[in-house]
Amino acid sequence: MGRYFEAMTYANVGLLEASTGNRDALVEILTRPSAELADAGCLLYEVGVNDDDPEAVFVAELWVSAEAHAASLQLPGVQAAIAEARPLMSGRMEGMRFDVLGSPLRE
Amino acid sequence: MGRYFEAMTYANVGLLEASTGNRDALVEILTRPSAELADAGCLLYEVGVNDDDPEAVFVAELWVSAEAHAASLQLPGVQAAIAEARPLMSGRMEGMRFDVLGSPLRE
Repeated sequence: MGRYFEAMTYANVGLLEASTGNRDALVEILTRPSAELADAGCLLYEVGVNDDDPEAVFVAELWVSAEAHAASLQLPGVQAAIAEARPLMSGRMEGMRFDVLGSPLRE
Repeated sequence: MGRYFEAMTYANVGLLEASTGNRDALVEILTRPSAELADAGCLLYEVGVNDDDPEAVFVAELWVSAEAHAASLQLPGVQAAIAEARPLMSGRMEGMRFDVLGSPLRE
């Protein structure tokens, strides 16, 4: 059975680990309001934590396309946030990326 | 600096690996329309694939709470989908769960 869905959006999910004591500062940077992201095609950008992984900051993003996501990394505001966040990070990063094919919440 | 955000929603993201050749069948089960999920507090349920991980089916979910997510696993429709999906799965599963604290897309 071939691929019968058309890819709709693009999901980028992962975690960025803060260096000890810097998790909340990293959350603050990542949750700072940014009109730039929505203009760039960001549909969802949820930031959170899980106390079972005490220094990790989790991000779940949906984008109109993989290209829109890739292009967003060059935006001035995003580059500035990356530069500000980098010193607060341990270097451990994990992630999953996928093309969305559908949802049980949509007909 | 203590925790200064109130957790808003709960994210559950992960991958379920299909056994060889069963990925599309697994996608079909997981994307089948289900009013039950929304009624149970599911805010988002995106299903997709990434050809770099050819048998994996990825899921990104947002729920009103961790409790709502846990309770949903007992729903008849969800139990039926799990039973239908299980024979199509290799057993490899990965995931991340987190309490959402905020978003740069919201003030």
